[in-house]
Amino acid sequence: MVVTIVGSGMMGSALAFPASDNGHEVRLVGTHLDREIIDTCRKTSRHPKFEKDFPETVKYYQIEELSEALSGADILIGGVSSFGVEWFYENVLKVVPENIPVLTVTKGLMDTPDGRLLTYPQVWSEMLEKSGKKLSLNAIGGPCTSYELVSCDQTHVSFCGENLETLEFLRNVMQTDYYHISITNDVTGIESAVALKNGYALGIALTIGLNKKQFNSEQLHFNSQAAIFGQAVGEMYKLLDFQKALSLNNLCVGAGDLYVTVYGGRTRLVGILLGEGFDIDQAKQKLNGVTLESLVVAERVARAIKINIQKGILCKKDFPLLLHIDEIITQKNPVNIPWDEFTYTERI
Amino acid sequence: MVVTIVGSGMMGSALAFPASDNGHEVRLVGTHLDREIIDTCRKTSRHPKFEKDFPETVKYYQIEELSEALSGADILIGGVSSFGVEWFYENVLKVVPENIPVLTVTKGLMDTPDGRLLTYPQVWSEMLEKSGKKLSLNAIGGPCTSYELVSCDQTHVSFCGENLETLEFLRNVMQTDYYHISITNDVTGIESAVALKNGYALGIALTIGLNKKQFNSEQLHFNSQAAIFGQAVGEMYKLLDFQKALSLNNLCVGAGDLYVTVYGGRTRLVGILLGEGFDIDQAKQKLNGVTLESLVVAERVARAIKINIQKGILCKKDFPLLLHIDEIITQKNPVNIPWDEFTYTERI
Repeated sequence: MVVTIVGSGMMGSALAFPASDNGHEVRLVGTHLDREIIDTCRKTSRHPKFEKDFPETVKYYQIEELSEALSGADILIGGVSSFGVEWFYENVLKVVPENIPVLTVTKGLMDTPDGRLLTYPQVWSEMLEKSGKKLSLNAIGGPCTSYELVSCDQTHVSFCGENLETLEFLRNVMQTDYYHISITNDVTGIESAVALKNGYALGIALTIGLNKKQFNSEQLHFNSQAAIFGQAVGEMYKLLDFQKALSLNNLCVGAGDLYVTVYGGRTRLVGILLGEGFDIDQAKQKLNGVTLESLVVAERVARAIKINIQKGILCKKDFPLLLHIDEIITQKNPVNIPWDEFTYTERI
Repeated sequence: MVVTIVGSGMMGSALAFPASDNGHEVRLVGTHLDREIIDTCRKTSRHPKFEKDFPETVKYYQIEELSEALSGADILIGGVSSFGVEWFYENVLKVVPENIPVLTVTKGLMDTPDGRLLTYPQVWSEMLEKSGKKLSLNAIGGPCTSYELVSCDQTHVSFCGENLETLEFLRNVMQTDYYHISITNDVTGIESAVALKNGYALGIALTIGLNKKQFNSEQLHFNSQAAIFGQAVGEMYKLLDFQKALSLNNLCVGAGDLYVTVYGGRTRLVGILLGEGFDIDQAKQKLNGVTLESLVVAERVARAIKINIQKGILCKKDFPLLLHIDEIITQKNPVNIPWDEFTYTERI
């Protein structure tokens, strides 16, 4: 099999490992933003952010070589970030042959002016429909950090898509003894679950920053993190319900993804800075002005929630945590976590 | 107000802090196992396991002085471990006046030969009923490690009991600006939620040990922990349903308590040793032959599940994680986590 990956950021590139380990030919294509990464990979056989070489069978392509990389491909993996959703449509989905199933790892949701939250496969499907094209769009959700996948830590993810046979095929290509895959038709559920966790991971990181300030120490405390975690599971449940995607599996995927995100990279760093008392602009500045995908997704979800609260579709009391996080991000309010509002009273 | 605490282990003793901070008189009573702790407290005003002195208003009592400590008390807090449940009934509940509400922090469940899982308040109520005595039995659940409560980390717990007025009273006595309290009538739910997490915290720690062995390093990986965490939320959901205590709040409390327990003390240590390849006897030996409350509770829950699977009331496929953990603990099976069985298919 030939697996072509477009987007040579960390997550896209990490997927080269299980695919190669299964004996497939992997073609890693950089976007226009990835030129240096591809140059480096060609020279060193290693991604600049990884501590391990790619298998020898991986081949590297600049974006201008996309059609060559797609020639004879059996699967296209999309590895762009949330900021590349439109680019991916214009430059990749428009040109990929209809018989090649697409599997994307981009996590996030788009909000609409009337307060809906759309998954990226939904957004792409609508774009494709207008151009009269039909593709098999599948997606990867679940807790997986790229560098841990590269080092073969045991990982369990979900592949979601419309057709179970296609999903079985994709699973067969990608599953290894360290990369475990559930499959499900519930695209909205999986994609929502893994997008909703963004604001909540930031919320847990806030308490780490609050602790640093309160105790003037780097020592971690977990009571406060756990209080946020519990409340986050409750709010994610309410949001999955809003997405008409309430299932036990989705809730588990969301909780697992939240767990892994608490320990991952920049969301944690910005949350700690906010908890320490910096405002969002100062925090971003300290992180070299980086635009955080997770913050953008959290803002979108909060915007949709607020619209639906106004419409009477959602209840304000069900989202005290995310609404406070939104105030911190969008209105620069000081951190003042509403601990006493954390509870639910109804039965499932 | 006078708050009398029986059991001067870490958790019972930690509750002296919010009670004192609210201006109440706290009387800390050691059990027969706590003699040295009480002696030390009298000499140093500090619990031997804490890094902070008790407030000056705390008074210390040996168990023979219990009636003095109970004289004029407004609340009795029970701070014994699961191994002290019968002792607490015989030596404390039998003698405490009926007008003093009891609030216990002992976490766990008892299993019965026919596969039921009883909360400790249930067990005590049945014992009391036989002796014709009636007490207001309330309990504390939720994520709270003792030493973090002592250091005033923000903490959110649930008080549960039959009477909401009593719970309001208990909350008023104990709530501070760092110790936040929800109240609920759902005793079975809260007590089950916080007991069920025991096996799952061990499960997450297993992956840490597996990582240590696989990578020969202390570096933490989170993909595998997160996969277990997600599955644990699913199995806890199924178990709460079995307990007829399925509510969103209980699920949040269970998830939060699991989160905090992953980082707490000996359950983590034994899980890591098991993951590294030691069997349960070797692991216990390495931890100085300690009997772990969490392991006992996990065994009880697994025993009840197995009985109910045999009866056709529960499904084996819903509990792959806990059943494997039980095999490791009770049959000394090697660790071989069933990653590919982690998924649920039904909607909520």
